[in-house]
Amino acid sequence: MADNPLGLLAQVLAALDSGQLKIIDLTTPLEPETPVIDLPEMFAPSPGLTLTEISRYDSRGPAWYWNVLNLGEHTGTHFDAPVHWITGKDLPNNTTDTIPPRKFIGPACVIDATAQVEQSPDFLLTIEHVQQWEAQHGRIPAGAWVLFQTGWGKRKGREAFLNVQADGAHSPGVHQSCMQFLIQERDILGLGVETVGTDAGQAGGFEPPFPSHTFLHGSGKFGLTSLLNLELLPPTGAIIIAAPLKIVDGSGSPLRVLAITA
Amino acid sequence: MADNPLGLLAQVLAALDSGQLKIIDLTTPLEPETPVIDLPEMFAPSPGLTLTEISRYDSRGPAWYWNVLNLGEHTGTHFDAPVHWITGKDLPNNTTDTIPPRKFIGPACVIDATAQVEQSPDFLLTIEHVQQWEAQHGRIPAGAWVLFQTGWGKRKGREAFLNVQADGAHSPGVHQSCMQFLIQERDILGLGVETVGTDAGQAGGFEPPFPSHTFLHGSGKFGLTSLLNLELLPPTGAIIIAAPLKIVDGSGSPLRVLAITA
Ligand SMILES: [Mn+2]
Ligand SMILES: [Mn+2]
Repeated sequence: MADNPLGLLAQVLAALDSGQLKIIDLTTPLEPETPVIDLPEMFAPSPGLTLTEISRYDSRGPAWYWNVLNLGEHTGTHFDAPVHWITGKDLPNNTTDTIPPRKFIGPACVIDATAQVEQSPDFLLTIEHVQQWEAQHGRIPAGAWVLFQTGWGKRKGREAFLNVQADGAHSPGVHQSCMQFLIQERDILGLGVETVGTDAGQAGGFEPPFPSHTFLHGSGKFGLTSLLNLELLPPTGAIIIAAPLKIVDGSGSPLRVLAITA
Repeated sequence: MADNPLGLLAQVLAALDSGQLKIIDLTTPLEPETPVIDLPEMFAPSPGLTLTEISRYDSRGPAWYWNVLNLGEHTGTHFDAPVHWITGKDLPNNTTDTIPPRKFIGPACVIDATAQVEQSPDFLLTIEHVQQWEAQHGRIPAGAWVLFQTGWGKRKGREAFLNVQADGAHSPGVHQSCMQFLIQERDILGLGVETVGTDAGQAGGFEPPFPSHTFLHGSGKFGLTSLLNLELLPPTGAIIIAAPLKIVDGSGSPLRVLAITA
């Protein structure tokens, strides 16, 4: 038990001021060029960002500058709430405005598969990979963000980032048995990825389709996508702050994802 | 100096798990009814939220639910970046995407003027009030969010919240000499308010007009508006997390504002 909880907070601020702790921004810049997921034509698409200037220190508003945002909830670095998926639709507190705020902060477990993904963009993380990671770094604690590091954030531009070929997108994901393991056996908070979504590019053809979304949200867990800078985090020890906009009945939202680390 | 910075973070998480520390959500629910500031007709207005459903577990997308957001950057609980005002337009790192992430976390100083505001909705906080507060709670530290508690967050509905009469809006603010004092003598991080903006309702007629925006952003400081639950915070000791969306060239953004406190 902490002797003095507020004193603990003061120590954190002092460590941030001295540089012993630092804030790392895991967020992709949000602009019109920020890629959004491509769905098959039969499905209704989600738009990327359109930023429309209202006025800029001019006759329409002499002393100020501001814009209108038009974008899908699931644009750029964003949060997936359980209501986003059919498997999570009836869970309590499953929207961006009703998730208990305690869940907006959690420890990070960064699992690096950059080398494997370089070999194969369709790489899927398995239970075995997780067990190897745990052998080195300890058991993933309940309530942790599992951050799946793949190097994908270094891919710039829509073509490279979505990596769509004739038979669909090719980007890494988590094998469904591993996803179920992390949820059932480790009670994670959610899965964070560098790619455009928590499912692999080819996951529309998996059985079940989109297993990461299916299982995560069916168990009240969250997703974070389009993360950057995971390579700047230690495997364990960082704290992630990921707090979605308080959209009433929101299925997700763009957000600023921060890590505090040494 | 902290012996073990990562150990400090682990202690914070343990205190959050045990309940010795808690997360308080200072954010107003974001929905179409969320009021936005009324400007005089000659100026270009900023729209509130329009939430448009893309699909909801239906033929347009059988397993998922998601929406499109259309809203001004300055809607509901939101962050004002220095570039938002003409006085801050040439400062370095003045947009939502370039502000150094260290600045997204800071200690809170909660100054309560609820009783005075009940007497007069046009109440302005003065240097004297701040000095009285400091006599009780200690000097406001550099880098602190000054959170101006007025009870205004309890006003529900556009009419009560904007409180517009024939001669404009009537809502509390900070006297310009006090704003300058907090900036020059205390080097605050920014000003957070329960009202729709960091300036008083009548501030369009002040000299200079909109002194809070003028001085805050001219000194690279920030604003937070439409905050709730300030009465749940201690006068000092809480940490505020306020991280805007990473909009490229953004003047501000809606955001989730959290406090960590005992
Ligand atoms: Mn999503
Ligand atoms: Mn504003």
